[in-house]
Amino acid sequence: MIRRCGRLLHKTKVRSHCPTEELRDFGLPNATWNKNLKDLYNKFLELSKNGSWKRIPSHNTIAHHLQGIGKRMFLRNLDSDGLGFEYCMFYNKDERRMVCLFQPGPYLEGPPGYAHGGCIATIIDSTAGAGAVYTCGSVMTANLNITYFKPVPLGCTLFVDSHVDKIEGRKVYSSCHIQSYDGVILHAEASALFIKANH
Amino acid sequence: MIRRCGRLLHKTKVRSHCPTEELRDFGLPNATWNKNLKDLYNKFLELSKNGSWKRIPSHNTIAHHLQGIGKRMFLRNLDSDGLGFEYCMFYNKDERRMVCLFQPGPYLEGPPGYAHGGCIATIIDSTAGAGAVYTCGSVMTANLNITYFKPVPLGCTLFVDSHVDKIEGRKVYSSCHIQSYDGVILHAEASALFIKANH
Repeated sequence: MIRRCGRLLHKTKVRSHCPTEELRDFGLPNATWNKNLKDLYNKFLELSKNGSWKRIPSHNTIAHHLQGIGKRMFLRNLDSDGLGFEYCMFYNKDERRMVCLFQPGPYLEGPPGYAHGGCIATIIDSTAGAGAVYTCGSVMTANLNITYFKPVPLGCTLFVDSHVDKIEGRKVYSSCHIQSYDGVILHAEASALFIKANH
Repeated sequence: MIRRCGRLLHKTKVRSHCPTEELRDFGLPNATWNKNLKDLYNKFLELSKNGSWKRIPSHNTIAHHLQGIGKRMFLRNLDSDGLGFEYCMFYNKDERRMVCLFQPGPYLEGPPGYAHGGCIATIIDSTAGAGAVYTCGSVMTANLNITYFKPVPLGCTLFVDSHVDKIEGRKVYSSCHIQSYDGVILHAEASALFIKANH
C-alpha cells in the first residue's frame, strides 16, 4: 500500500505540468466543444437514461494500471483543450455498438485544413477497439482496413459508429463508419480485426 | 509581397508559444534520439552522399502553404522533443522508396507501455504518403490496410520502409513494412492506395 502511494506520488511529480488533470475525465464537455458536438452528446446522454447506452469515461493516462508514469494516452496527450482529439464515447451493450462523438482540433492537421489520415485511423482504432473491449474484454488490434471517401475538415463534428459483427474464438471482427454529425457525409469506413488477450 | 509578410507576421503572433520553432526542421537529430535512431540516421546520411538517397525536411506547420495559422501538423504537435513522434525520412527516387526512422515517445501510448495502433497507422500513412508525393506529386489517402504482428514498445527505434509498387492513372499503390531498427522483428505491414490530385 505504501509502495503504491509512493508510485502515485512520483507520477504526480513527473507529470507536474498538468497536476490537476491526473484523474480528469476528458469525455465530459468543455468550452471548446462546438454546438453540434454538444447536441450529439446531450442526445446520447438522454438515450443513456434508460440504461441502453452508457457513457464511457476517458483519461489521459492509464494511472489505474499504475504503469502510466511519464506516459500519456496518445489521444489525450496535449495540454490544452480543443487542439487535438475532442471526443466522448457511448456504449450499447445489447447492440454491441460503441459510438464516438469526435471534433478534430487544429493540431491534427494533415492536408491543409483537413485532419490527417492517421488521426482518422486513430479514432477508428480507438472506437472499434473500445467496443471490442467492452464486448469481450482485453484485445489487441490485428488488422485495420480503412477506406477514406471524403477529407475531414478540422473543427467539424463527426459521428463514429462501430459495431462488433462477429466473434470467432479469440477473433473479434468489427466494422466502423465515420459520418458527419448529421449523417449526410460518409467520410470513411473500416473493418477491424481484434484478438482477445490469452488469459 | 507586403501581404505575404503581413500574414507571416500574424502567424508568428498566433503561434507565439513556440516562436523560434516556426521553421525548425524536426527531421534533424535532437538530444532525445536514442543510439539506434542516431546510428540509422547516420547510415542514411552516408548513403545520401552519392545522391541516391535524400533527406526530407520536416516541419510542424504547413507555413509554406501560408495556411497553417494556429494549426499544427498532426505528427509534430507537441511542444517538447522526445515525447511524441521522433522521426526523419529519406527518399530514394530510383527505387521509389521512402524510409522513415522512427522513435515513438511516451505520449503515444495505447496498451500499457506500447504505441497506440493509431500511431502506427499514422507513421505508415505519413511515410507511404510522402513516398507517393515525392514520386507522383500531391495525393490523398484512399485506402490503408494494416496488419499488426507485434506490439511496438514505447522508446524503441523502428525502420519504416515504404515503396510505390504501381501507378495506374491517378491511382498510386504502395506497400509499407515496419521493422525493428535491426530488422529482426516485423511489427506491421500495410498496403496503401493514394489518389493523385486532379490538376
